[in-house]
Amino acid sequence: MRVESYLQGDWCDGGGEGETYCDPTTGDVVAQFSTQGLNLAEAFQYARTTGCSNLAATTIHQRASMLKALAKILGDAKESLYEVSYQTGATKADSWIDIDGGFGTLFTYASRATNELPNAKVVVDGDVEKLSRDGSFVAQHVFTPRQGVALQINAFNFPIWGTLEKFAPAFIAGMPVIVKAAEQTGFLTAALVRVMIDADVLPEGALQLVCGKSHDILDHVQSQDVIAFTGSTSTARIIRTHPQVVAHNPRLSIETDSVNATILGPDAKSGSDEFNLLIDEVVKEISTKAGQKCTAIRRILVPLEIMDELSASLSIRLQGIVTGNPRNERVQMGPLVSLAAKDRVASCIEALVQSCDVVLDGRTIDDLVDAERSGAFIGPTLLQATSSTADVVNNVEAFGPVCTLIGYSDNIDLVRIVKAGDGALVGSIFSNDDEFVASLVNNIASYHGRILVVNGENAQSHTGHGSPLPTLLHGGPGRAGDGEELGGMRAVKHYMQRTAIQGSPQTLANVTGRWVEGAEIIEPGVHPFRIPFHELAIGTTFFSAEREVTIADIESFAHLTGDIFYAHMDEESAKRNPIFGGRVAHGYFLVSAAAGLFVDPPYGPVLANYGIDALRFTKPVKPGTRIKVRLTCKSKSFRQGRGYGEVAWDTQITDQDDNVCASYDVLTMVSELAIPDGGET
Amino acid sequence: MRVESYLQGDWCDGGGEGETYCDPTTGDVVAQFSTQGLNLAEAFQYARTTGCSNLAATTIHQRASMLKALAKILGDAKESLYEVSYQTGATKADSWIDIDGGFGTLFTYASRATNELPNAKVVVDGDVEKLSRDGSFVAQHVFTPRQGVALQINAFNFPIWGTLEKFAPAFIAGMPVIVKAAEQTGFLTAALVRVMIDADVLPEGALQLVCGKSHDILDHVQSQDVIAFTGSTSTARIIRTHPQVVAHNPRLSIETDSVNATILGPDAKSGSDEFNLLIDEVVKEISTKAGQKCTAIRRILVPLEIMDELSASLSIRLQGIVTGNPRNERVQMGPLVSLAAKDRVASCIEALVQSCDVVLDGRTIDDLVDAERSGAFIGPTLLQATSSTADVVNNVEAFGPVCTLIGYSDNIDLVRIVKAGDGALVGSIFSNDDEFVASLVNNIASYHGRILVVNGENAQSHTGHGSPLPTLLHGGPGRAGDGEELGGMRAVKHYMQRTAIQGSPQTLANVTGRWVEGAEIIEPGVHPFRIPFHELAIGTTFFSAEREVTIADIESFAHLTGDIFYAHMDEESAKRNPIFGGRVAHGYFLVSAAAGLFVDPPYGPVLANYGIDALRFTKPVKPGTRIKVRLTCKSKSFRQGRGYGEVAWDTQITDQDDNVCASYDVLTMVSELAIPDGGET
Repeated sequence: MRVESYLQGDWCDGGGEGETYCDPTTGDVVAQFSTQGLNLAEAFQYARTTGCSNLAATTIHQRASMLKALAKILGDAKESLYEVSYQTGATKADSWIDIDGGFGTLFTYASRATNELPNAKVVVDGDVEKLSRDGSFVAQHVFTPRQGVALQINAFNFPIWGTLEKFAPAFIAGMPVIVKAAEQTGFLTAALVRVMIDADVLPEGALQLVCGKSHDILDHVQSQDVIAFTGSTSTARIIRTHPQVVAHNPRLSIETDSVNATILGPDAKSGSDEFNLLIDEVVKEISTKAGQKCTAIRRILVPLEIMDELSASLSIRLQGIVTGNPRNERVQMGPLVSLAAKDRVASCIEALVQSCDVVLDGRTIDDLVDAERSGAFIGPTLLQATSSTADVVNNVEAFGPVCTLIGYSDNIDLVRIVKAGDGALVGSIFSNDDEFVASLVNNIASYHGRILVVNGENAQSHTGHGSPLPTLLHGGPGRAGDGEELGGMRAVKHYMQRTAIQGSPQTLANVTGRWVEGAEIIEPGVHPFRIPFHELAIGTTFFSAEREVTIADIESFAHLTGDIFYAHMDEESAKRNPIFGGRVAHGYFLVSAAAGLFVDPPYGPVLANYGIDALRFTKPVKPGTRIKVRLTCKSKSFRQGRGYGEVAWDTQITDQDDNVCASYDVLTMVSELAIPDGGET
Repeated sequence: MRVESYLQGDWCDGGGEGETYCDPTTGDVVAQFSTQGLNLAEAFQYARTTGCSNLAATTIHQRASMLKALAKILGDAKESLYEVSYQTGATKADSWIDIDGGFGTLFTYASRATNELPNAKVVVDGDVEKLSRDGSFVAQHVFTPRQGVALQINAFNFPIWGTLEKFAPAFIAGMPVIVKAAEQTGFLTAALVRVMIDADVLPEGALQLVCGKSHDILDHVQSQDVIAFTGSTSTARIIRTHPQVVAHNPRLSIETDSVNATILGPDAKSGSDEFNLLIDEVVKEISTKAGQKCTAIRRILVPLEIMDELSASLSIRLQGIVTGNPRNERVQMGPLVSLAAKDRVASCIEALVQSCDVVLDGRTIDDLVDAERSGAFIGPTLLQATSSTADVVNNVEAFGPVCTLIGYSDNIDLVRIVKAGDGALVGSIFSNDDEFVASLVNNIASYHGRILVVNGENAQSHTGHGSPLPTLLHGGPGRAGDGEELGGMRAVKHYMQRTAIQGSPQTLANVTGRWVEGAEIIEPGVHPFRIPFHELAIGTTFFSAEREVTIADIESFAHLTGDIFYAHMDEESAKRNPIFGGRVAHGYFLVSAAAGLFVDPPYGPVLANYGIDALRFTKPVKPGTRIKVRLTCKSKSFRQGRGYGEVAWDTQITDQDDNVCASYDVLTMVSELAIPDGGET
């Protein structure tokens, strides 16, 4: 099968003979690629112009809803992708992680972006900073999309998930993507991208695909670009030191090798629940994708005194793993991705056995189901380190079904061994000893992007050592590349530039679309609660009448609510309180009375007050104080397709001398209709 | 003067002849350095062991209070630093930015860290993520200090501010610092560090100083380190591609050149306020530090039609700048830092004049006050570009008192010219046209770390184009290095590692010191409000009695507060509301009644409820519903030296069927005494 690239809105072939890739189970040729004649310079230029401008015309929520639509269409097409996936050596279970896992990531990014980011083009970061006493000079940090290309260079092991977990956050951020698919499995990525393009959901220029070798792709990067890379340390070094990269400082997010450790706590006895849970996890991690996962377990750290027992039990379980043709339903583990990969793993094993005993050697396999030894097969391999300080044990990542057992003598030794891995994507701990776990986690957290702790409570519910989740950080320091992917909306911000904007309050309001104290106040002539969502302007304000807070109010409120705290009800005690110095009104009464002052009672577009944010009581209110309220439309975010939007109102309660007594944001749902029709939301 | 380094707790000299540095005004030798015999490997090791462990023993607030104490002591010693500063060529006004600006940064970091970060060792990031339906498996992102060295390589222009603005966030984060001072002005940094060390405030190992050349300093970096660099693009390239850096992936934060632009809006007429404000700003930026600021204005973009008038007016003002010996109080601009720097600037001017007309040439100066031409003087230099598309105009940063005027024809041309700078630390806009400003800012934000907008409102209050502020981001994409410094607590997190911790709720509670839903609940036998701060355990919980919400309650509450919104008072209208479908209790009544259910009335350790965070009404409460409250001690942060701490209580209102009706955090101040003494807080 000839596999094309998708550039500048067209499928295209680089011409010439190209590269050939084979099914690692059968040796059959499955794909031929060529990038020889492709014009990547024009593809980058197309992304920077057509892609950037089309994306800039959309809001974050619009992009989120495209992503959701895309995920649905992909779901409908998944059977065909499963078929192609066998040709990469993946079992059905492996493909589920790659395919369904990838689609799930799209759904998560779509819903999180809708719930956690505004329906806007600019995302604010942190609070407004007041820079002058008179309030005429303020600042706000904002995130805007980087005006370049997100070049995403993927690894071979997850041709679908890997593509989508990088694409989703870049697309939400508003950056056009050029996917550089891995060579060995690019035909599956191409099949995915074909469905994505045929879906006709994405704006033109938002997605391009390069399949095949591409030695010159980095020659086209510029300063606003983001390069996200998953793969080998050697390729990462080429990227980091590439003259174009060094000259222009595109942002890099790099995820490389990782000699991930799983740890059995010192409390675990032989045959205990944790002992068995750890064995289950190792068996799963070693067989899934034939161990070709950057998050797989490479080192098993166990108390020295039970290492031999664990080794024996684990070895028996590993011998039970059925290896062979992934199309056969009995098979639990398929081949490696290629014969070259098999050779690389074999030579890593050769390096490891210099400092390890061999418990189980997968380089020779007797039982293969439905497959020939000429395929790229390596069986489960278990090694046992003879010295925990040997460099090779902590530094060599055999990217296949290979694990090394290392015994630790005490907690200090354990921490030393973990850190000898020099930075990892993930570590896991199996222990019921809370104190040990808390101390260990604090000791080793900075060497990890993710740490999983399994104990009796979550033995059944945990999601596993090797599973990155869309909402959690994926990436790690040091050897792991020091990049960050996923982590929910954190990843979106890696594709945006953070900028501090300084200016007058109105300038900030214009730039961010959010009202800032000191910005223009609009008094519309009607109560703001009578204005439907789309007509409501940022800055629209209601100034209430005054109300005196009396001792009778405080008494009545205490009586009604049952809140007879001494500060409100007992003058003697309240006088002793260093903050109040005498009876004061309930804070809850203030916000309640404020609502009484600002609400507009009749039926109208304001559907509900669904919450309050950042309420601070800044000045105690004594009886006799006259309070009043200012309520200003601060921010709006429309809920696409639901007939209403969220409106936050900046609210301030002041006394007769204009001292601020309380400030908060009132959160409301506002209909787009003046008189909502009462339908279901 | 022989200048020593401070390593492993001692002042030391590298021996040999070393390098010699001269006062750029007088040519007198002012300093000799040598790093020849220094053992940097041991210095790094000392930081990793003594430094890291001493810092790990302190909380963020403890570090903040050390920083504050240090800033006070530095303030007392500032006269001596001002004296030394003249020898760098700085005027008194220049030194004020460097010295007082540096101390101010320490004060800001001390107070922000106390107010915005917990008094703890771990900082949580974002919300708890629920990962299993039953709540037994959850996750929390945390920041912990990177367990390495913060190697801070400073530029010559701000020997004090530059050192302190990098030191403060690393120290708050808990990383030991090795300062590599700039060679030309390292004697002033050494004088600063001597005061810091003599103050005896910092933990041993927290601060070391290398003065002089140090070709091998990068050979010692490891994966947990952070390298923060300010300086030239050529040195930045050496750092990025250094074999040790490429092999180990320390985190990099790089700040390099920047051809910053200031922009006069198309609305500005010749002689208008904005026209004059921009001229004032350029005069200030060109003369301060003789233009040796990474944030200085290099390009002045003005509407083509008024370029000549601006050029003429600006030229007159620039000619009025008094240049000479910085010790003379009449002098407004001193020399460049060295004769070599003067040569570099002169050759940049030479390059620029290939595409520019010379309006004012500072390479020849007639009037020098109190100084000889043999000093490193260059006078104010104004060039006028003959073509806005010439590469040199947008790419050459003459690091001295040199500006180039560029005329733009329309807004599209303007955006193109700004972007041709390829990334900058700062840009500024002088305009009163709100619409133009908002559109321009959105167009160019991603090319900047900071954008200043000056208009009529903040003409008097703005802090200037060239002033980084401790609370605002300093750094920029592309040419500027793509690093981030300052920005308040954002910078602290650059010295920490973000890690996702997955486990049972109790595991997360143990690691973070914060209660998580599902973690252990402690029922202490007394009301939690009777427990003083230090005895109060995380997880301490109060379960209230039930209370029925009646129609009479709703009526009374409406009557007392004045809140007669239809959803509470008008059954007919409330039925039309798609969320309520009938009369419901006021949300404000719920939280008020909840307080009635949970408060403990008598005088005791709870001093005040100072606010509420993240209140969400999740289920409308109809008359007849019986509500109850759970109040759980979620997080604690002691206020060092104030006798109380902040306690947040996770609060949940549920109905008789345990549906959650509202959830929020109640924020209180809790005394360390069971019966507070009533003193001032």
